[in-house]
Formats: sequence, structure tokens, C-alpha cells
Amino acid sequence: MTESRSLIEPRTLKGFRDHLPAQALAREKILDIARRVYRSYGFAPIDTPALEYLEILTGKGSDETDKQLYRFKDHGGRDVGLRFDLTVPFARFCAQHIGVLGTPFKRYHMAPVWRGENTQRGRYREFMQCDFDTIGTTSPVADLETVLVVHDLLAAICIGGFTIRVNDRRVLSGILHECGVADRSTDVLRSLDKLGKATPEAVAAELEAHGVSADVRAKLLGMAQLTGDPATVLAALDGLVGSSEIGRTGVAALRSLLNGVRQAGVPDGRVVIDPSIARGLDYYTGIVLESFLDDLSALGSICSGGRYDNLAGLYTKQSLPGVGASLGIDRLLAGLEELGRLDLKETPAEVFLVHFDEAHLADYIRIAAQLRADGMAVEFYPEAKRVGNQLKMAVKKGFRVALVIGSDEFAAGTAQVKDLAAQTASTIDWHGDIHVLSDAIHSQLEAIKSGH
Amino acid sequence: MTESRSLIEPRTLKGFRDHLPAQALAREKILDIARRVYRSYGFAPIDTPALEYLEILTGKGSDETDKQLYRFKDHGGRDVGLRFDLTVPFARFCAQHIGVLGTPFKRYHMAPVWRGENTQRGRYREFMQCDFDTIGTTSPVADLETVLVVHDLLAAICIGGFTIRVNDRRVLSGILHECGVADRSTDVLRSLDKLGKATPEAVAAELEAHGVSADVRAKLLGMAQLTGDPATVLAALDGLVGSSEIGRTGVAALRSLLNGVRQAGVPDGRVVIDPSIARGLDYYTGIVLESFLDDLSALGSICSGGRYDNLAGLYTKQSLPGVGASLGIDRLLAGLEELGRLDLKETPAEVFLVHFDEAHLADYIRIAAQLRADGMAVEFYPEAKRVGNQLKMAVKKGFRVALVIGSDEFAAGTAQVKDLAAQTASTIDWHGDIHVLSDAIHSQLEAIKSGH
Repeated sequence: MTESRSLIEPRTLKGFRDHLPAQALAREKILDIARRVYRSYGFAPIDTPALEYLEILTGKGSDETDKQLYRFKDHGGRDVGLRFDLTVPFARFCAQHIGVLGTPFKRYHMAPVWRGENTQRGRYREFMQCDFDTIGTTSPVADLETVLVVHDLLAAICIGGFTIRVNDRRVLSGILHECGVADRSTDVLRSLDKLGKATPEAVAAELEAHGVSADVRAKLLGMAQLTGDPATVLAALDGLVGSSEIGRTGVAALRSLLNGVRQAGVPDGRVVIDPSIARGLDYYTGIVLESFLDDLSALGSICSGGRYDNLAGLYTKQSLPGVGASLGIDRLLAGLEELGRLDLKETPAEVFLVHFDEAHLADYIRIAAQLRADGMAVEFYPEAKRVGNQLKMAVKKGFRVALVIGSDEFAAGTAQVKDLAAQTASTIDWHGDIHVLSDAIHSQLEAIKSGH
Repeated sequence: MTESRSLIEPRTLKGFRDHLPAQALAREKILDIARRVYRSYGFAPIDTPALEYLEILTGKGSDETDKQLYRFKDHGGRDVGLRFDLTVPFARFCAQHIGVLGTPFKRYHMAPVWRGENTQRGRYREFMQCDFDTIGTTSPVADLETVLVVHDLLAAICIGGFTIRVNDRRVLSGILHECGVADRSTDVLRSLDKLGKATPEAVAAELEAHGVSADVRAKLLGMAQLTGDPATVLAALDGLVGSSEIGRTGVAALRSLLNGVRQAGVPDGRVVIDPSIARGLDYYTGIVLESFLDDLSALGSICSGGRYDNLAGLYTKQSLPGVGASLGIDRLLAGLEELGRLDLKETPAEVFLVHFDEAHLADYIRIAAQLRADGMAVEFYPEAKRVGNQLKMAVKKGFRVALVIGSDEFAAGTAQVKDLAAQTASTIDWHGDIHVLSDAIHSQLEAIKSGH
């Protein structure tokens, strides 16, 4: 049918990529963990369409070009766009459904978003976001749970050491007010945000350019560099906010948050106060958080969020305060790969059943079915090709054990169970009793996992 | 900031919909089952971009309008489109990567697709597909596994009775050849395909219009209506294909497939031969299958597929035969909801911890954390509001048990565990030992599940 045509070159668009099994498995593993952790706190999944009315996405024509929206006219002539994040659709969703859902409402949403931005810095135009939020309550318990979810998530992913850095926007407001620079808060916070990338001297020079006096500069730089034991940091912040009401509220919130983290059994040092964190200038109004891999802090924050006053003001008059965070799964996967902590197997199955002898096809089919019924994932090679080649493929794909049962083994009631990584084999006497075989494979798998 | 603007009406595009927690949970449950079953046979996940070059999707301008492609020019002026199925991207994917991946290659792909088609028949413009395929082998084992995966999938979803109907396109080819109407096979198969919707008389009249003689009409209608015991159907097909080589190959393949299904332990009657199934006219070349809920066969096939000779002929000269099937998850969910077999809970958590007394906040935080560490999903209400209202919300959302521990209970070392569906409660003596409490809740959950 197609012979007479020239071939179409198979390729993906610039900034887009395929996920081959090894990458897709690594991603599914983290998505599974995120799903389990989010659910363990009662967050429920939702989904929204990839396409939305353009005005929903842009808020009637604001910074559409900044977001490099994929936009077009649909078949009905409507202006539509692909979502560029999960927050805007969630705001629209809440404005539409919160009456039915009731508050507090806890949701997670794991889905791709699209941005036609410059791809030079290793960024992709399609990437996944994994957000969770609690809407409709200003309770500090929701703030605490947000931090705990991030903690449980990063601990479950088993990425070695990590640190969650928290702050409260009210502390910053209080300090800026106390220093008499509240009128320049945007400029001042933007300058302070450069600490880490720029030297304290360079930041001080910027602050001076904004008309910040020498003693206030010293105070602000001292604040932004506060670090160490939470009690000490909190005491210093107490001093810095002085009599500012909002500042004192913020420090009290941080103190209570750290208490809650301890009460929940989080090891000391995993959650620290970092007064330099502001996370953007408009959106967040209470706690803010970022989290970093200890071995790869240059990666930037892999899970960030905070509290906001009003989620859906563009779409409803109902005030919807909330708190939440977002896991940057693509950034995290890149980081784990760089650290060599990504187990890049190409198969989700652990057991490879060799197709040794076509005359025993019926036996293999029965054995594979029974092992699966026992809860094992078993790939059976579809053709009776050379055993060496089958095993080579099994090793390459990352199966744990191979099961070899040829005519001799069937006659003797035995089976060979090969540890594919160690390149060792043991012979099992099972005499047709699948439970014996199943138990032997199970033990072998346990031994392999505990040995690694 | 937005007060002075008029509000944007929160709404989704025609043909698109939000998934609220109850629907999203039901869908995630089925996706989890599909993932587990696909993986148990060694199928690995992949993902491809939502956006592709238009020419990849249309195969250089074929029936693009039929597919109601969402298409537009991207920021770089490229003609792009949203994928309308997962088969075309998979063909492109294989053409690009099969050299690295090797064959046989077994993948699953669960992702949304978009079609701007008419929405009148309850169809949506965004829906999810869940495909699995084995590429690069013509082995009948791969055909058998396809049927077994569909079986395990539908059995695991627990939807009551279901029937998988299989056929082989070579049987149809053989019979049409034997009847001397192979030159009109498209017309004849299209007419036969109407059986079930149209009466045998109406179909016969159509066949007559195509110049099919009376005895051939009788033969074809007899074939398409063959039903019952597989051995009997196979014997009848043996007779109908006569000496046709391809027809005999097809009947032998069906016979061996049914044997394999039995060897794998599938109960009799779950997989039957239905000689009327053709599944489109061009694509499939070997086995074809459809599957139906016994209680809701009018829903149509909820999982369909078959074998094809050449997946990726538009993009590569390498011949890639394969076999696979696709779960129509949205159709299935609609069917399960209609049958009342969908457990439409709004929460993924089972345990609701009442926020009874703010003075005990630290205790609640600790208890919730420890129950979660024990593997339970626990929602803790963020505010110390009226207990009655908290419990009402817990019942509405579908929590199984509520845990009530007020000051009196803390003093006495007890806790109330409420069965929210039965509206009963029992008092537990736990005296601060979280494992006692955890065991008690666990037992209560087990009792509730076994009782329902």
C-alpha cells in the first residue's frame, strides 16, 4: 500500500522527546511514590483538559507571550491553548466545582504541561508536573502537612540526603517594614534573591542603589544568611521583626511549623529555616518552601511551594486560600541520573522464562500463567531461539532471574534458576509442583535484592 | 490586583471535561490494574509527545479531516498536530528506536488522545487510550499472550461476566476465496459486519446486491452466525475454508490459540470463536479479538485488537509485524457506572482522624504520622470544627473508619473507632501504644471489607 510513497522521516519536534522503557519506568516509579504519599494524607486525584479556552489560560491577555503558550483556533473557531501549568487549570476547576466538592479540598494532579520556550538550557517543551494543594482553609495544620508530604515524598524516593528549606513571607514583610524599606520590597527581595549566585558584596551594592542605608543593608544581608539550629534562627528573627505584627505572626508560624515537624517524627536537620527564600513576589503570602538534594544542590529546588491567599480570583468572587507544592519530576529524574541513583532497567518484570524447547510450549504457558497468578511478573520469550541469545537479551533488559527448563529438566523434575547479574545458577527440584518452583524463585529474588 | 476586572467565566471547552476525585479515582484504579497486568507479562511503558509533526500524524495528507485533527502552526512555523491515537506515534517511535530497543519489543502506553469530532453521541474530544503491543515477532505465543492479557485485565477489574471473542482474518480470507467472492471482500465483509445491528435478511439482501449467489449467501451468513462449543465451531470452519491454504492456516491458528488459553488455566467459555469479527478491513492480518461485558454487551467491545503485518511502513523499510490490543477505558468506566459497579468514593484514604480538641494537636500529628508509617492512608481534619460536621464530611467522601480521640479518651487511654458506613463504633484500649491502635484499625478495616 505504501511502497510507492517515499518514507516520512520519523522524528519528534524540537524540545519534545520520547520516553523509552528505561526512562518511562524510572518516571512511573516516582509517580507511583508521589501518588502513594499524596494519598496517604487524603489528597485525591483530579484531572483537567489539556486544552482550555485561551482567556482562561491568559486571564484576558496578560503575559501570554512570556508563557510561550501553544495557542490556536479550534474547529469551532474558538481561541484555545494548551495548559502551561497545572495551577491555572486548578484555579478554574475550583471556581467551577468547589461548591459541589466542599472545603477543605485536597487534590493532587500529575499531568503534562506545554511551553514553547527556548530549549537551550536543557529544558523541554513538554514536561510533567505533580502538584498537590489543600484549598479552603487557613489552618496551620495544612501548612504542616504540605511540608510533611514533601518530606515523606523525598524520603520514599530514597535519594540520600535532602533538605527542606522553609520560610514565611510574613517574616520578610515584617522585617522590611521594620527596616523602613517596605515601599521598595519588590526591588529589595529581588536583590536578596540573588544571594548564592551573586556575592554578598554585589547584593549590598544593588541594595545601596535602591537607597537602602548601610545598617539596613547589614541587617538584611545578615537575615538572608541566617542558618543553623532552628531555635537560634527563630530567636534572631524575633529580634529582626521587632514589633511588626505581621512579622511576629510569621515567626510564630515558623516556630509552630518546626514543632509540628518534630512531633511528626521527622529527623532533625531535614527541615530548616532559610530566611532568604521568597519564591516569587506576588503569589505567596504565608509559608514558602524549597527542597534540595544534599549531593546536588546546584540542581536547584526539586519540590517547591507555599501558602497563597486567593487561588481563583480571576474566575470567582469566592476567596479560596490554600497551600501546596509541586514536585519537579523531570528535574529530579535528571538529578538522580546524574548521581547514578537511577536504576535504568528496560523491563518491569523480574523473571525471564527461557523458551528452550518448543515441544514443551504447553508446559511453559502453564508455568508462566501459574507464576503470574502467584504475583510474579514473568516474560516468556515468544520463540524457541538459541538460549544464549535469549539470556543475553534478558541480561541487557535487566531481568533479575532467568528460569531454564529444558527436556532434561522436565524429565528430572528440576529447573535451573539463574541469577542474571551474578551469573550464577542453582538447580531446583520441583517435580511439577508449581508452588515449590514459585517459592524457590521468590527466595532467589529476595536474596538478590537484599544482597544489592 | 484583579478586583477591578470582570470575572472570567470558569468553563471547559465543548467535548472536554474535568475529572472530579470520584471519577479520577475510579480511572486511576483501572489504570493501576492495567499497568500491573501489562507488566506481569513483561510489557514495559513508553511515552511519546502529545504534539507531533503534522505529516507524521497524517502520513502526508491522507484522511486528516476524518480524524478531526487538532492542528496548528507552532512558534517556529512548523505544521503540528495533537495525536489522535497511540498507534501512529508508536509506529513513528518504532521506526526511530527499534534498532536500540531490539525485538521482540513489548510496550504499553496509557495516555490521552484528542479528536475534534462530533460530540453528540456522548463521545469526548479528549479521551484516554491504554494500548499494549508485541512488535517484531510473528510467533503465535505473542497472539496467545495478547488474549491472556485481555483476559487477566478484565478478570482483575472484577466486572462480572465477560466474553472475549476471537477470530482470524485468514479464516475470513480463506472462506471468501473458497466461495469465489475474494474480489469483493471489502463489500462482503462490510455487509457481514452489520449482523447484530441489521437482520440476517437485510444483510442477505445487501450481499445479493453485491452479486453474491444464494448458496454463497447462505454459507456466509451461516459462518458469521456460528457459535457455541469451540470444537464444533472449528470443525465447521474446517469445512468452510475447504482447501484454501490461508484459510486452513487461520483455522489451525485459532485451534492452537484456544488450546493455549486452556493450558493457561482460563475458565471455559471466557474465550470463544466468533467468525463474524473482522475489525476493519485493511490493518489486521491474523487474529482479531473483541471483548464484551455479559451484562452490557450493547456497550460494544471494551478491549479490542489483533495481529498486523507491518506497523511502521510509512516511516521505515524495516518490516515490523506485531500484535496488540487497546482497552477502551472511558467506555469501560461508563459501562461500570451504568451497572452500578463503580465504587464512587471521593477519597483515596480509608481513615479519617477527627480534629476533636485543639489542645491535643501535637498528639494528633504524632498519631497520624505513625499510622501513615504503618502503611495507612489517614486524613486529619485541619481545624477543630464541630465533630458532627467533620464526621458528615467523612461519610460523604467515603472514608471507611473515623478515629475519635478527645480529652476524655486521651485521659483514659482509649479511642473510638467508628465504622462510617454501618454507623457503629467500638472503643479501643490502646494506652498510648500506637501499634495497638494501628492493629485495631486494621482489623476494623478488614472486617468492613470482608463484610461488604
